[in-house]
Amino acid sequence: MSVDDLVFDHRAEWPMVAFVDGGGKRLRVVARTSRGGAREVGVWFAERYRGEPHVPAGEQAGEAQVLCRLAGQDRQWDYWEAELSVPTGRYKYLFWIVPTRQTGRTGLVWAGDHSDLGACPGELWPFEVPHRLAVEAPSVPEWARGAFFYQIFVDRFHNGDPGNDPPGTLPWPAPGEAHRAAVPRGSHPFYGGDLAGVAEKLPYLASLGVDAVYLTPIFRSPSNHKYDTEDYLAVDPAFGDAATLQEMVDRAHRLGIRVVLDLVFNHSGDRFFAFRDVAEKGEASAYREWFFVRRYPVTASPPSYETFATDVASMPKLNTAHPEVRRYLIDVALHWMRHAGVDGFRLDVANEVSPLLWRDLRAAARAERPDVLLIGEIFHQATPWLRGDQWDSAMNYPWRRAVVDFFATGRTAPSRLWERLETLRFGTAPPVTEAMVNLLGSHDTPRFRRLAGGETWRLELATLFQFAYPGVAQVYYGDEVAMDGGDDPDCRRPMEWSPGPEGLRVLELVRALGQWRRTYPCLKTGGVRLALLDDAAQVLAFWRDAPAPGAERRQVGAAHPESARASCLVVINRGRFSYEVPAGSVLPPGHRVAASLAAGGAAAPSASGPAAAGGERLLVGPRSGLLLAILPG
Amino acid sequence: MSVDDLVFDHRAEWPMVAFVDGGGKRLRVVARTSRGGAREVGVWFAERYRGEPHVPAGEQAGEAQVLCRLAGQDRQWDYWEAELSVPTGRYKYLFWIVPTRQTGRTGLVWAGDHSDLGACPGELWPFEVPHRLAVEAPSVPEWARGAFFYQIFVDRFHNGDPGNDPPGTLPWPAPGEAHRAAVPRGSHPFYGGDLAGVAEKLPYLASLGVDAVYLTPIFRSPSNHKYDTEDYLAVDPAFGDAATLQEMVDRAHRLGIRVVLDLVFNHSGDRFFAFRDVAEKGEASAYREWFFVRRYPVTASPPSYETFATDVASMPKLNTAHPEVRRYLIDVALHWMRHAGVDGFRLDVANEVSPLLWRDLRAAARAERPDVLLIGEIFHQATPWLRGDQWDSAMNYPWRRAVVDFFATGRTAPSRLWERLETLRFGTAPPVTEAMVNLLGSHDTPRFRRLAGGETWRLELATLFQFAYPGVAQVYYGDEVAMDGGDDPDCRRPMEWSPGPEGLRVLELVRALGQWRRTYPCLKTGGVRLALLDDAAQVLAFWRDAPAPGAERRQVGAAHPESARASCLVVINRGRFSYEVPAGSVLPPGHRVAASLAAGGAAAPSASGPAAAGGERLLVGPRSGLLLAILPG
Repeated sequence: MSVDDLVFDHRAEWPMVAFVDGGGKRLRVVARTSRGGAREVGVWFAERYRGEPHVPAGEQAGEAQVLCRLAGQDRQWDYWEAELSVPTGRYKYLFWIVPTRQTGRTGLVWAGDHSDLGACPGELWPFEVPHRLAVEAPSVPEWARGAFFYQIFVDRFHNGDPGNDPPGTLPWPAPGEAHRAAVPRGSHPFYGGDLAGVAEKLPYLASLGVDAVYLTPIFRSPSNHKYDTEDYLAVDPAFGDAATLQEMVDRAHRLGIRVVLDLVFNHSGDRFFAFRDVAEKGEASAYREWFFVRRYPVTASPPSYETFATDVASMPKLNTAHPEVRRYLIDVALHWMRHAGVDGFRLDVANEVSPLLWRDLRAAARAERPDVLLIGEIFHQATPWLRGDQWDSAMNYPWRRAVVDFFATGRTAPSRLWERLETLRFGTAPPVTEAMVNLLGSHDTPRFRRLAGGETWRLELATLFQFAYPGVAQVYYGDEVAMDGGDDPDCRRPMEWSPGPEGLRVLELVRALGQWRRTYPCLKTGGVRLALLDDAAQVLAFWRDAPAPGAERRQVGAAHPESARASCLVVINRGRFSYEVPAGSVLPPGHRVAASLAAGGAAAPSASGPAAAGGERLLVGPRSGLLLAILPG
Repeated sequence: MSVDDLVFDHRAEWPMVAFVDGGGKRLRVVARTSRGGAREVGVWFAERYRGEPHVPAGEQAGEAQVLCRLAGQDRQWDYWEAELSVPTGRYKYLFWIVPTRQTGRTGLVWAGDHSDLGACPGELWPFEVPHRLAVEAPSVPEWARGAFFYQIFVDRFHNGDPGNDPPGTLPWPAPGEAHRAAVPRGSHPFYGGDLAGVAEKLPYLASLGVDAVYLTPIFRSPSNHKYDTEDYLAVDPAFGDAATLQEMVDRAHRLGIRVVLDLVFNHSGDRFFAFRDVAEKGEASAYREWFFVRRYPVTASPPSYETFATDVASMPKLNTAHPEVRRYLIDVALHWMRHAGVDGFRLDVANEVSPLLWRDLRAAARAERPDVLLIGEIFHQATPWLRGDQWDSAMNYPWRRAVVDFFATGRTAPSRLWERLETLRFGTAPPVTEAMVNLLGSHDTPRFRRLAGGETWRLELATLFQFAYPGVAQVYYGDEVAMDGGDDPDCRRPMEWSPGPEGLRVLELVRALGQWRRTYPCLKTGGVRLALLDDAAQVLAFWRDAPAPGAERRQVGAAHPESARASCLVVINRGRFSYEVPAGSVLPPGHRVAASLAAGGAAAPSASGPAAAGGERLLVGPRSGLLLAILPG
């Protein structure tokens, strides 16, 4: 046959290379080969300035070689990973590949710069990675890795102060009725939720184990969602004021909960002072270049200026590459860091904002506070924004799509779910991977329960999976009590504070999972490793391995030393029959199960309960999931 | 078989996506499939905010589709290219692939975000490209595209003012002897070359058709190479002074020659005032953080501080991430732009310098002068630095390696040369591709002639190829007269101003090629297309296609309108026998040969001369190359 079965790909840039220590010494490299094409991949490496780069293997001092481990597979690729270490942190390296028999190739293949291939290393130039300073490498605040985030759409969460309700505010539905209060398309109700309400419910969030709350915008704006900012420097009066915000943040901090605000910098509202000035004075306005005005005079219908999305007149697009605009918006961020002590920001429509703003914002915010967190909103591949100069993390909508397709609609098989997640995982590198914001839904999507056809076991399994998988687990308010809701704005119903039995069941699961994340460091920063994939049975299982001791220990905090050594195994059985994990196939000999947590199983025909772990026998009920903490024997 | 023969790869970032108009509207996309795996690739695309992204094909307004053209192939990949256009410049798109029969696949394959594959588009999320502003897209000064650069190692070029020679300066060797004046390893002679000498020889360079001179460092330093800067703000007295520099630049500009200086920002010299301060005052120095001192007191042998390469005590590494250092170095660049009118900079050891410095430098230099050119020195893949935020171009050493292996040492076949160049070409995108600095050698490599075993025809063929291939053609002083020289410092012999017959032959070729680049716009900005590859005969040929009219026309300048419509064909015959290009296989029917230029052939056993083009018959002599300007019939 004429096609070549071995394709090799490596690029000497993030995420395929990543300094694992932040300080620019130890290097993690990932290469990929077309699936099934290689049976071994290794790396030859040396200090960049040692010896002759064109006479590498085995002929000079200071060199070393290491075998890669097969770290994952997706539909197209096998991913090979290794960690390299040279004292200076300046690397040159080549890969060697042992092709599988199926490729029809014999003998080693070498791969060097530009992923060029050759039969001997002398044909190739090594990949090179110069030393990086910590300030330039992707880094994320340690507190964000594997954290439990809770998203609050403020107007719909809790009305703590009826005194600040805007005119026409609807009454909060009766207990047990809130989750049925559909919000029809085209309606723009206010329900009176506010910062005092958030503050009041902080103990509830703390009891769930929440590490951080992310609030949709709170700055002055005419709408209930507040993505059309009128004044970036004022809290909306319907939500409170600067003091209420400060109070809420302080209270959160006392409970160990961090606060992330929403920065809407892609566009302002049409009431924003600068836009009003342009609308009034036209070309004479000093703020003329802050927006993209197509023609004067400024008109709203149709808009004579660029907007968010297509002709959303109330949201004029800001020229975020303009130095004055950047300065202004960065001052906004710094203002709220300084005056309210907020811990991070979610950046709205972040892929359409100038990288110049994000770079400046990152530098300024990090200088103000080294552990500030910056999360970009994006619906597609975020890699280009995560290389260390712009965001720390992104809302992981691609992860959500894969999880919805498997757990909610059931359109995909376990192997397909896993492949998609592996593609995503290798689109980042630790520690960013563990800070990616994995979510089942948001104010911009139908609720997971709706997509799951109301079947709560699907929500339970997905939630178990979410907390077991690497990344921030972000729960959208109300999902923890199995609220229903369709497309925006129906996904923004008032919070149900008196959930029924199904809601309570999910609530207890979320509370337990929050506790697990705090107990077992492996769920926050441990590696992930597939344990079992059975498409016929609709079962998959994976490990979260205990983080290596040392570097990670400081992060364990108050955790019991034993739990720090635990690995976690999660088994998902989406099928209609009980599944017995083959004895000895997954659990290591002599292990000890330290704890277990079951989920789902509500509709299970089995009498044995949702799931059970006994000795070597591991039985998982239909439509059930099982999370186990395992201690080495 | 178990391996999959179709691998697809696309990433929605530069160079696989590039706005071709700079202004962020028209998008060039490149996808690649494992070689031989696809027989057709196409793109479905739409405005990003139009309709539902998850129900794409054929079901909504504002969408379009276009077939890709097979734009190139390397060892592993077929590269597919298309140009998309939507009015807003915000894209979503999917690829479809028709696999070849060899893959064993039937039916269309769709590819979406994260290069995920599916049988139908609904399984996938589209790739997305938000609108980019011109300030954020890779751009290069128009004058650099396809320009003829000439590199000067100042001490060895021409002694224009013996009055400033440093003590111990060696006499310039006698005419005809200079190229034999070997510089042995470990010797550090001065030959007295200076800026007055450069100025004096500018008419010579103008007569060659040189568009820009690149000078190795000229700032005050104790060495002959001056990569150990003592004072960034002073011209070295052995080279002249600020006035001499200004005079030389003015004279160059009057001759239409631009001037590029060398900025050595990775490290300073150990006489640099800031380093001296640290050496003297130790930890008390205000410049302590400008360097990486490992321990105090500062010692030189062994160095107690980080240096360039390994322990080069005279070159202490600068902390280019430090804000004060950045400010200082940027002011250096601006100083020479303002006070000497220089047109660009070559950035030494540029991959080891903080990206923070390059981003700031780019912004500051572009603000000072929009057409300033920034070229990074790097020996490996430069893609990460060329995305629009750091450099415009890079010294293309990977290109040089491929060309040396084919033309000088003859280790590789034509197909291997072409594959390697295609890999490199698709590691960038226009207009960066045409600004990459392709070189046969530099002050850091043995001279091409040496690597070619003294065979001048190899140098001639390589030079012809260099000027015919997309990119800046940079000639290292003396290569145009076939100078010899081994590894650094032997490659830095005094310029031979009285070349013998071989040197004169190469000189005339370079002069002719300089003229061709000025006459035929296709050689500067036209696309490249393989025409013929014959490994047995050791022949390859490629086209440079006439640039599309319109956008490119302004750049043609004084060129005759007819030459603007010409395409160029270059045929290289490295073999020992004459080669007749099969009739009708390459040249289009009815074409007209407007001009032709031959090279090499000196050692040819054929009596027919180096090369000849007659009607449909195209005969290329052994070890010869032929460049043809072709007009459509």
